[in-house]
Amino acid sequence: MTLRLHYAPDNASLCVRLALEELRLDYHAALVDRRAGAQRAPGYLALNPHGMIPVLETDEGPIFETAAILLWLSDRHRRHAVLMPAPDAPERGMALAWLFWLSNTLHPALRMLFYGGEHIAPEQVFALHERTAQRTLEMLDRLEAATPSLGGWLGADQPSALDCYLAPMLRWCALYPESGTGWFDLARWPGLRASLERFETRPSVRAAIEAEGLGPRPFTDPHPPHPPEGYAT
Amino acid sequence: MTLRLHYAPDNASLCVRLALEELRLDYHAALVDRRAGAQRAPGYLALNPHGMIPVLETDEGPIFETAAILLWLSDRHRRHAVLMPAPDAPERGMALAWLFWLSNTLHPALRMLFYGGEHIAPEQVFALHERTAQRTLEMLDRLEAATPSLGGWLGADQPSALDCYLAPMLRWCALYPESGTGWFDLARWPGLRASLERFETRPSVRAAIEAEGLGPRPFTDPHPPHPPEGYAT
Repeated sequence: MTLRLHYAPDNASLCVRLALEELRLDYHAALVDRRAGAQRAPGYLALNPHGMIPVLETDEGPIFETAAILLWLSDRHRRHAVLMPAPDAPERGMALAWLFWLSNTLHPALRMLFYGGEHIAPEQVFALHERTAQRTLEMLDRLEAATPSLGGWLGADQPSALDCYLAPMLRWCALYPESGTGWFDLARWPGLRASLERFETRPSVRAAIEAEGLGPRPFTDPHPPHPPEGYAT
Repeated sequence: MTLRLHYAPDNASLCVRLALEELRLDYHAALVDRRAGAQRAPGYLALNPHGMIPVLETDEGPIFETAAILLWLSDRHRRHAVLMPAPDAPERGMALAWLFWLSNTLHPALRMLFYGGEHIAPEQVFALHERTAQRTLEMLDRLEAATPSLGGWLGADQPSALDCYLAPMLRWCALYPESGTGWFDLARWPGLRASLERFETRPSVRAAIEAEGLGPRPFTDPHPPHPPEGYAT
Protein backbone atom coordinates (compact mmCIF):
# COMPACT_ATOMS: atom_id res chain seq x y z
CA MET A 1 0.00 0.00 0.00
CA THR A 2 1.21 3.50 -0.84
CA LEU A 3 1.28 5.81 2.18
CA ARG A 4 1.75 9.57 1.97
CA LEU A 5 2.03 11.54 5.22
CA HIS A 6 1.22 15.23 4.96
CA TYR A 7 3.35 16.74 7.68
CA ALA A 8 4.96 19.82 9.19
CA PRO A 9 8.08 19.42 11.35
CA ASP A 10 7.40 18.88 15.04
CA ASN A 11 3.63 19.05 14.46
CA ALA A 12 1.10 16.35 15.37
CA SER A 13 2.24 14.54 12.23
CA LEU A 14 5.35 13.61 14.24
CA CYS A 15 3.22 11.17 16.26
CA VAL A 16 2.26 9.40 13.04
CA ARG A 17 5.81 9.42 11.69
CA LEU A 18 7.01 7.73 14.89
CA ALA A 19 4.44 4.96 14.36
CA LEU A 20 5.30 4.58 10.68
CA GLU A 21 8.98 4.19 11.58
CA GLU A 22 8.27 1.76 14.41
CA LEU A 23 6.10 -0.33 12.06
CA ARG A 24 8.90 -0.21 9.43
CA LEU A 25 6.50 0.96 6.73
CA ASP A 26 7.52 2.70 3.54
CA TYR A 27 5.96 6.14 3.24
CA HIS A 28 6.41 9.43 1.49
CA ALA A 29 6.47 12.57 3.66
CA ALA A 30 4.89 15.58 1.92
CA LEU A 31 5.64 18.93 3.57
CA VAL A 32 2.69 21.20 4.39
CA ASP A 33 4.03 24.74 4.33
CA ARG A 34 2.35 26.22 7.41
CA ARG A 35 3.80 29.71 6.87
CA ALA A 36 2.15 29.80 3.43
CA GLY A 37 -1.11 28.54 4.96
CA ALA A 38 -0.94 25.42 2.80
CA GLN A 39 -3.23 23.55 5.20
CA ARG A 40 -6.00 25.95 4.13
CA ALA A 41 -5.50 25.48 0.38
CA PRO A 42 -8.35 23.78 -1.53
CA GLY A 43 -6.24 20.73 -2.35
CA TYR A 44 -5.49 20.11 1.30
CA LEU A 45 -9.06 20.78 2.43
CA ALA A 46 -10.19 18.09 -0.01
CA LEU A 47 -8.12 15.66 2.06
CA ASN A 48 -9.13 17.08 5.44
CA PRO A 49 -12.00 19.60 5.53
CA HIS A 50 -10.84 20.78 8.97
CA GLY A 51 -7.52 22.01 7.59
CA MET A 52 -5.48 20.30 10.28
CA ILE A 53 -2.15 18.46 10.08
CA PRO A 54 -1.63 15.49 9.63
CA VAL A 55 -3.36 13.62 6.83
CA LEU A 56 -2.30 10.12 5.80
CA GLU A 57 -3.20 9.31 2.20
CA THR A 58 -3.75 5.60 1.63
CA ASP A 59 -4.95 3.42 -1.23
CA GLU A 60 -8.34 3.48 0.52
CA GLY A 61 -8.50 7.27 0.72
CA PRO A 62 -7.24 9.97 3.10
CA ILE A 63 -7.39 9.59 6.88
CA PHE A 64 -7.19 12.60 9.19
CA GLU A 65 -7.00 12.96 12.98
CA THR A 66 -3.73 11.90 14.59
CA ALA A 67 -5.24 9.22 16.83
CA ALA A 68 -7.43 7.80 14.05
CA ILE A 69 -4.36 7.36 11.88
CA LEU A 70 -2.40 5.79 14.75
CA LEU A 71 -5.20 3.33 15.45
CA TRP A 72 -5.72 2.48 11.78
CA LEU A 73 -1.99 1.86 11.26
CA SER A 74 -1.76 -0.20 14.45
CA ASP A 75 -4.67 -2.45 13.46
CA ARG A 76 -3.57 -2.93 9.86
CA HIS A 77 0.15 -3.50 10.37
CA ARG A 78 1.21 -5.91 13.10
CA ARG A 79 4.10 -7.74 11.48
CA HIS A 80 7.10 -5.75 12.72
CA ALA A 81 5.59 -4.16 15.82
CA VAL A 82 2.33 -4.30 17.78
CA LEU A 83 1.22 -0.79 18.73
CA MET A 84 -2.30 -1.56 20.01
CA PRO A 85 -4.01 -4.62 21.50
CA ALA A 86 -5.86 -6.55 18.79
CA PRO A 87 -9.60 -5.83 18.50
CA ASP A 88 -10.41 -9.07 20.34
CA ALA A 89 -7.75 -8.73 23.06
CA PRO A 90 -8.86 -8.10 26.64
CA GLU A 91 -6.67 -4.98 26.95
CA ARG A 92 -8.29 -3.37 23.92
CA GLY A 93 -10.96 -1.41 25.80
CA MET A 94 -8.56 0.21 28.24
CA ALA A 95 -6.05 1.09 25.51
CA LEU A 96 -8.81 2.68 23.41
CA ALA A 97 -9.99 4.65 26.45
CA TRP A 98 -6.57 6.21 26.97
CA LEU A 99 -6.03 6.80 23.25
CA PHE A 100 -9.28 8.79 23.09
CA TRP A 101 -8.36 10.58 26.31
CA LEU A 102 -5.00 11.69 24.87
CA SER A 103 -6.88 12.93 21.82
CA ASN A 104 -9.84 14.69 23.42
CA THR A 105 -8.48 15.84 26.77
CA LEU A 106 -4.68 16.19 26.91
CA HIS A 107 -4.16 17.35 23.31
CA PRO A 108 -6.90 20.06 23.43
CA ALA A 109 -5.51 21.31 26.76
CA LEU A 110 -2.13 21.80 25.10
CA ARG A 111 -3.74 23.65 22.19
CA MET A 112 -5.37 25.94 24.75
CA LEU A 113 -2.01 26.48 26.47
CA PHE A 114 -0.14 27.19 23.24
CA TYR A 115 -2.72 29.11 21.23
CA GLY A 116 -5.54 30.05 23.65
CA GLY A 117 -4.10 33.49 24.23
CA GLU A 118 -4.59 34.41 20.59
CA HIS A 119 -8.35 34.68 20.98
CA ILE A 120 -8.92 36.47 24.27
CA ALA A 121 -8.38 39.90 25.77
CA PRO A 122 -4.71 40.48 26.72
CA GLU A 123 -5.52 40.98 30.40
CA GLN A 124 -7.09 37.50 30.49
CA VAL A 125 -4.14 35.63 29.03
CA PHE A 126 -2.29 35.12 32.31
CA ALA A 127 -5.33 33.68 34.11
CA LEU A 128 -6.13 31.35 31.21
CA HIS A 129 -2.54 30.11 31.12
CA GLU A 130 -2.46 29.51 34.88
CA ARG A 131 -5.74 27.62 34.87
CA THR A 132 -4.91 25.49 31.86
CA ALA A 133 -1.41 24.72 33.11
CA GLN A 134 -2.85 23.53 36.43
CA ARG A 135 -5.42 21.33 34.67
CA THR A 136 -2.68 19.86 32.48
CA LEU A 137 -0.46 19.05 35.47
CA GLU A 138 -3.36 17.16 37.03
CA MET A 139 -3.96 15.27 33.78
CA LEU A 140 -0.35 14.15 33.66
CA ASP A 141 -0.50 13.17 37.34
CA ARG A 142 -3.44 10.89 36.53
CA LEU A 143 -1.63 9.45 33.52
CA GLU A 144 1.49 8.69 35.58
CA ALA A 145 -0.62 7.07 38.30
CA ALA A 146 -2.54 4.95 35.78
CA THR A 147 0.47 3.69 33.82
CA PRO A 148 0.94 0.47 35.85
CA SER A 149 -2.71 -0.46 35.15
CA LEU A 150 -2.15 -0.16 31.41
CA GLY A 151 -0.54 -3.58 31.18
CA GLY A 152 2.51 -2.53 29.16
CA TRP A 153 0.58 -0.38 26.66
CA LEU A 154 2.25 2.82 27.88
CA GLY A 155 5.90 3.38 28.75
CA ALA A 156 7.00 -0.23 28.25
CA ASP A 157 10.14 -1.41 26.45
CA GLN A 158 8.15 -1.91 23.25
CA PRO A 159 6.42 1.39 22.44
CA SER A 160 2.71 1.57 21.64
CA ALA A 161 0.49 3.97 19.74
CA LEU A 162 -0.06 5.72 23.07
CA ASP A 163 3.70 6.31 23.40
CA CYS A 164 3.92 7.64 19.86
CA TYR A 165 1.13 10.11 20.66
CA LEU A 166 2.30 11.11 24.14
CA ALA A 167 6.04 11.64 23.57
CA PRO A 168 5.66 14.62 21.19
CA MET A 169 3.04 16.19 23.46
CA LEU A 170 5.40 16.06 26.43
CA ARG A 171 8.12 17.57 24.22
CA TRP A 172 5.87 20.47 23.25
CA CYS A 173 5.05 21.17 26.90
CA ALA A 174 8.72 21.99 27.44
CA LEU A 175 8.90 24.27 24.37
CA TYR A 176 5.60 26.13 23.95
CA PRO A 177 4.39 28.74 24.31
CA GLU A 178 7.84 30.30 24.17
CA SER A 179 6.69 32.96 26.63
CA GLY A 180 5.58 30.55 29.35
CA THR A 181 6.97 27.05 29.76
CA GLY A 182 7.93 27.38 33.44
CA TRP A 183 4.93 25.37 34.62
CA PHE A 184 6.30 22.15 33.13
CA ASP A 185 9.05 20.03 34.68
CA LEU A 186 9.28 16.45 33.45
CA ALA A 187 10.95 15.42 36.75
CA ARG A 188 7.49 15.55 38.36
CA TRP A 189 6.62 12.28 36.56
CA PRO A 190 9.50 9.79 36.96
CA GLY A 191 7.61 7.03 35.17
CA LEU A 192 6.86 9.13 32.10
CA ARG A 193 10.41 10.45 32.10
CA ALA A 194 11.93 6.97 32.20
CA SER A 195 9.78 5.85 29.31
CA LEU A 196 10.80 8.88 27.23
CA GLU A 197 14.45 8.08 27.93
CA ARG A 198 14.03 4.59 26.53
CA PHE A 199 11.90 5.81 23.66
CA GLU A 200 14.25 8.45 22.29
CA THR A 201 17.15 6.03 21.86
CA ARG A 202 15.27 3.55 19.66
CA PRO A 203 16.53 3.34 16.07
CA SER A 204 13.02 3.89 14.71
CA VAL A 205 12.60 6.99 16.81
CA ARG A 206 16.06 8.28 15.84
CA ALA A 207 15.00 8.08 12.18
CA ALA A 208 11.98 10.29 12.86
CA ILE A 209 14.11 12.67 14.91
CA GLU A 210 16.61 13.03 12.05
CA ALA A 211 13.89 13.60 9.49
CA GLU A 212 12.45 16.53 11.43
CA GLY A 213 15.64 17.99 12.97
CA LEU A 214 14.64 17.52 16.61
CA GLY A 215 18.11 17.31 18.19
CA PRO A 216 19.86 14.69 20.35
CA ARG A 217 17.39 14.23 23.24
CA PRO A 218 14.14 15.65 21.89
CA PHE A 219 11.86 14.19 24.55
CA THR A 220 13.87 14.37 27.78
CA ASP A 221 15.75 17.58 26.93
CA PRO A 222 13.87 19.34 24.14
CA HIS A 223 15.20 22.26 22.14
CA PRO A 224 13.55 24.11 19.26
CA PRO A 225 13.75 22.06 16.06
CA HIS A 226 16.04 22.72 13.10
CA PRO A 227 14.15 20.89 10.38
CA PRO A 228 15.74 20.17 7.00
CA GLU A 229 12.61 21.60 5.35
CA GLY A 230 9.61 23.63 6.43
CA TYR A 231 8.65 25.29 9.70
CA ALA A 232 7.34 23.95 12.99
CA THR A 233 5.07 26.95 13.64
CA MET B 1 -20.68 -10.89 28.79
CA THR B 2 -22.04 -8.80 31.66
CA LEU B 3 -22.26 -5.10 30.79
CA ARG B 4 -22.89 -2.36 33.34
CA LEU B 5 -23.31 1.22 32.08
CA HIS B 6 -22.65 3.93 34.64
CA TYR B 7 -24.91 6.73 33.46
CA ALA B 8 -26.68 9.98 34.24
CA PRO B 9 -29.81 10.88 32.27
CA ASP B 10 -29.17 12.87 29.08
CA ASN B 11 -25.40 12.80 29.71
CA ALA B 12 -22.76 11.41 27.34
CA SER B 13 -23.78 7.97 28.59
CA LEU B 14 -26.87 8.39 26.38
CA CYS B 15 -24.65 7.89 23.30
CA VAL B 16 -23.55 4.53 24.68
CA ARG B 17 -27.09 3.53 25.68
CA LEU B 18 -28.26 4.20 22.11
CA ALA B 19 -25.56 1.86 20.80
CA LEU B 20 -26.34 -0.83 23.39
CA GLU B 21 -30.01 -0.74 22.38
CA GLU B 22 -29.23 -0.76 18.66
CA LEU B 23 -26.93 -3.75 19.17
CA ARG B 24 -29.69 -5.47 21.24
CA LEU B 25 -27.30 -6.17 24.10
CA ASP B 26 -28.37 -6.91 27.66
CA TYR B 27 -26.95 -4.39 30.11
CA HIS B 28 -27.54 -2.98 33.54
CA ALA B 29 -27.77 0.81 33.86
CA ALA B 30 -26.31 2.09 37.14
CA LEU B 31 -27.23 5.68 37.98
CA VAL B 32 -24.40 8.09 38.84
CA ASP B 33 -25.92 10.73 41.12
CA ARG B 34 -24.36 13.90 39.75
CA ARG B 35 -25.96 16.17 42.35
CA ALA B 36 -24.28 14.13 45.08
CA GLY B 37 -20.97 14.28 43.17
CA ALA B 38 -20.95 10.49 42.83
CA GLN B 39 -18.62 10.69 39.83
CA ARG B 40 -15.93 11.99 42.22
CA ALA B 41 -16.35 9.22 44.81
CA PRO B 42 -13.40 6.82 45.25
CA GLY B 43 -15.35 3.84 43.91
CA TYR B 44 -16.13 5.66 40.67
CA LEU B 45 -12.61 7.06 40.30
CA ALA B 46 -11.33 3.49 40.50
CA LEU B 47 -13.30 2.83 37.31
CA ASN B 48 -12.42 6.14 35.62
CA PRO B 49 -9.67 8.25 37.21
CA HIS B 50 -10.94 11.30 35.29
CA GLY B 51 -14.31 11.21 37.07
CA MET B 52 -16.29 11.53 33.86
CA ILE B 53 -19.53 9.83 32.79
CA PRO B 54 -19.90 7.22 31.26
CA VAL B 55 -18.04 4.09 32.24
CA LEU B 56 -18.92 0.69 30.80
CA GLU B 57 -17.94 -2.18 33.07
CA THR B 58 -17.20 -5.37 31.16
CA ASP B 59 -15.85 -8.83 31.99
CA GLU B 60 -12.50 -7.50 30.74
CA GLY B 61 -12.52 -4.44 33.00
CA PRO B 62 -13.93 -0.92 32.87
CA ILE B 63 -13.84 1.20 29.72
CA PHE B 64 -14.21 4.98 29.85
CA GLU B 65 -14.46 7.68 27.15
CA THR B 66 -17.71 7.71 25.19
CA ALA B 67 -16.13 7.15 21.78
CA ALA B 68 -13.83 4.40 23.05
CA ILE B 69 -16.84 2.53 24.40
CA LEU B 70 -18.76 3.05 21.15
CA LEU B 71 -15.87 1.74 19.09
CA TRP B 72 -15.27 -1.23 21.37
CA LEU B 73 -18.94 -2.21 21.33
CA SER B 74 -19.11 -1.76 17.54
CA ASP B 75 -16.10 -4.00 16.93
CA ARG B 76 -17.13 -6.72 19.39
CA HIS B 77 -20.83 -6.99 18.56
CA ARG B 78 -21.81 -7.17 14.91
CA ARG B 79 -24.59 -9.75 14.93
CA HIS B 80 -27.69 -7.55 15.19
CA ALA B 81 -26.30 -4.28 13.84
CA VAL B 82 -23.08 -3.00 12.30
CA LEU B 83 -22.15 0.35 13.81
CA MET B 84 -18.63 0.75 12.41
CA PRO B 85 -16.79 -0.58 9.34
CA ALA B 86 -14.80 -3.70 10.22
CA PRO B 87 -11.10 -3.16 10.98
CA ASP B 88 -10.17 -4.45 7.51
CA ALA B 89 -12.88 -2.57 5.58
CA PRO B 90 -11.87 0.25 3.24
CA GLU B 91 -14.21 2.74 4.95
CA ARG B 92 -12.62 2.12 8.34
CA GLY B 93 -10.08 4.95 8.18
CA MET B 94 -12.59 7.65 7.30
CA ALA B 95 -15.08 6.45 9.91
CA LEU B 96 -12.36 6.48 12.59
CA ALA B 97 -11.33 9.98 11.51
CA TRP B 98 -14.84 11.35 12.05
CA LEU B 99 -15.33 9.42 15.30
CA PHE B 100 -12.18 10.99 16.74
CA TRP B 101 -13.23 14.38 15.39
CA LEU B 102 -16.61 14.16 17.14
CA SER B 103 -14.74 13.25 20.32
CA ASN B 104 -11.90 15.76 20.26
CA THR B 105 -13.37 18.72 18.38
CA LEU B 106 -17.17 18.90 18.44
CA HIS B 107 -17.68 17.48 21.94
CA PRO B 108 -15.08 19.76 23.63
CA ALA B 109 -16.59 22.78 21.83
CA LEU B 110 -19.96 21.94 23.37
CA ARG B 111 -18.40 21.59 26.82
CA MET B 112 -16.90 25.05 26.33
CA LEU B 113 -20.31 26.42 25.30
CA PHE B 114 -22.16 24.80 28.20
CA TYR B 115 -19.62 25.12 31.02
CA GLY B 116 -16.90 27.51 29.81
CA GLY B 117 -18.51 30.47 31.54
CA GLU B 118 -17.98 28.87 34.95
CA HIS B 119 -14.26 29.49 34.87
CA ILE B 120 -13.81 32.99 33.48
CA ALA B 121 -14.54 36.55 34.50
CA PRO B 122 -18.24 37.45 34.07
CA GLU B 123 -17.51 40.20 31.54
CA GLN B 124 -15.77 37.66 29.31
CA VAL B 125 -18.62 35.17 29.18
CA PHE B 126 -20.50 36.77 26.30
CA ALA B 127 -17.43 36.96 24.05
CA LEU B 128 -16.48 33.34 24.83
CA HIS B 129 -19.99 32.18 24.04
CA GLU B 130 -20.12 34.10 20.75
CA ARG B 131 -16.75 32.82 19.62
CA THR B 132 -17.43 29.21 20.57
CA ALA B 133 -20.92 29.25 19.04
CA GLN B 134 -19.49 30.53 15.76
CA ARG B 135 -16.80 27.82 15.77
CA THR B 136 -19.41 25.18 16.45
CA LEU B 137 -21.64 26.36 13.60
CA GLU B 138 -18.69 26.04 11.24
CA MET B 139 -17.95 22.55 12.55
CA LEU B 140 -21.51 21.42 11.88
CA ASP B 141 -21.37 23.03 8.41
CA ARG B 142 -18.33 20.89 7.63
CA LEU B 143 -20.01 17.79 9.00
CA GLU B 144 -23.12 18.37 6.88
CA ALA B 145 -20.98 18.95 3.79
CA ALA B 146 -18.94 15.80 4.40
CA THR B 147 -21.84 13.45 5.06
CA PRO B 148 -22.20 12.23 1.44
CA SER B 149 -18.51 11.26 1.45
CA LEU B 150 -19.02 9.08 4.51
CA GLY B 151 -20.45 6.22 2.48
CA GLY B 152 -23.50 5.60 4.66
CA TRP B 153 -21.66 5.74 7.98
CA LEU B 154 -23.49 8.91 9.05
CA GLY B 155 -27.18 9.72 8.67
CA ALA B 156 -28.10 6.57 6.74
CA ASP B 157 -31.15 4.39 7.33
CA GLN B 158 -29.10 2.07 9.51
CA PRO B 159 -27.49 4.15 12.24
CA SER B 160 -23.79 3.96 13.06
CA ALA B 161 -21.65 4.70 16.09
CA LEU B 162 -21.25 8.20 14.64
CA ASP B 163 -25.03 8.70 14.70
CA CYS B 164 -25.25 7.44 18.28
CA TYR B 165 -22.60 9.98 19.28
CA LEU B 166 -23.86 12.92 17.20
CA ALA B 167 -27.62 12.79 17.93
CA PRO B 168 -27.35 13.58 21.67
CA MET B 169 -24.82 16.35 20.96
CA LEU B 170 -27.23 18.04 18.54
CA ARG B 171 -29.99 17.68 21.17
CA TRP B 172 -27.85 19.39 23.80
CA CYS B 173 -27.11 22.29 21.45
CA ALA B 174 -30.82 23.10 21.49
CA LEU B 175 -31.07 22.89 25.30
CA TYR B 176 -27.86 24.17 26.86
CA PRO B 177 -26.78 26.48 28.30
CA GLU B 178 -30.29 27.44 29.31
CA SER B 179 -29.28 31.10 29.13
CA GLY B 180 -28.08 31.03 25.54
CA THR B 181 -29.33 28.53 22.97
CA GLY B 182 -30.36 31.08 20.33
CA TRP B 183 -27.29 30.44 18.18
CA PHE B 184 -28.49 26.95 17.24
CA ASP B 185 -31.16 26.17 14.65
CA LEU B 186 -31.21 22.63 13.30
CA ALA B 187 -32.90 23.86 10.10
CA ARG B 188 -29.46 25.15 8.99
CA TRP B 189 -28.42 21.52 8.30
CA PRO B 190 -31.18 19.73 6.37
CA GLY B 191 -29.15 16.55 6.02
CA LEU B 192 -28.43 16.25 9.73
CA ARG B 193 -32.06 17.12 10.51
CA ALA B 194 -33.42 14.42 8.19
CA SER B 195 -31.17 11.81 9.74
CA LEU B 196 -32.29 12.76 13.26
CA GLU B 197 -35.92 12.43 12.14
CA ARG B 198 -35.31 8.87 11.02
CA PHE B 199 -33.19 8.08 14.03
CA GLU B 200 -35.63 9.14 16.75
CA THR B 201 -38.42 6.86 15.46
CA ARG B 202 -36.39 3.64 15.62
CA PRO B 203 -37.58 1.14 18.25
CA SER B 204 -34.09 0.84 19.70
CA VAL B 205 -33.84 4.60 20.06
CA ARG B 206 -37.34 4.82 21.58
CA ALA B 207 -36.22 2.38 24.28
CA ALA B 208 -33.30 4.65 25.22
CA ILE B 209 -35.58 7.70 25.12
CA GLU B 210 -38.06 6.05 27.51
CA ALA B 211 -35.32 4.96 29.89
CA GLU B 212 -34.04 8.53 30.28
CA GLY B 213 -37.32 10.49 29.96
CA LEU B 214 -36.36 12.49 26.90
CA GLY B 215 -39.84 13.16 25.47
CA PRO B 216 -41.49 12.45 22.10
CA ARG B 217 -39.07 14.05 19.62
CA PRO B 218 -35.87 14.43 21.63
CA PHE B 219 -33.56 15.11 18.68
CA THR B 220 -35.62 17.21 16.26
CA ASP B 221 -37.64 19.06 18.94
CA PRO B 222 -35.79 18.72 22.24
CA HIS B 223 -37.24 19.65 25.62
CA PRO B 224 -35.63 19.30 29.05
CA PRO B 225 -35.67 15.67 30.21
CA HIS B 226 -37.93 14.20 32.88
CA PRO B 227 -35.92 11.14 33.84
CA PRO B 228 -37.43 8.36 35.96
CA GLU B 229 -34.35 8.56 38.20
CA GLY B 230 -31.47 10.95 38.71
CA TYR B 231 -30.65 14.35 37.25
CA ALA B 232 -29.32 15.48 33.89
CA THR B 233 -27.19 18.29 35.33
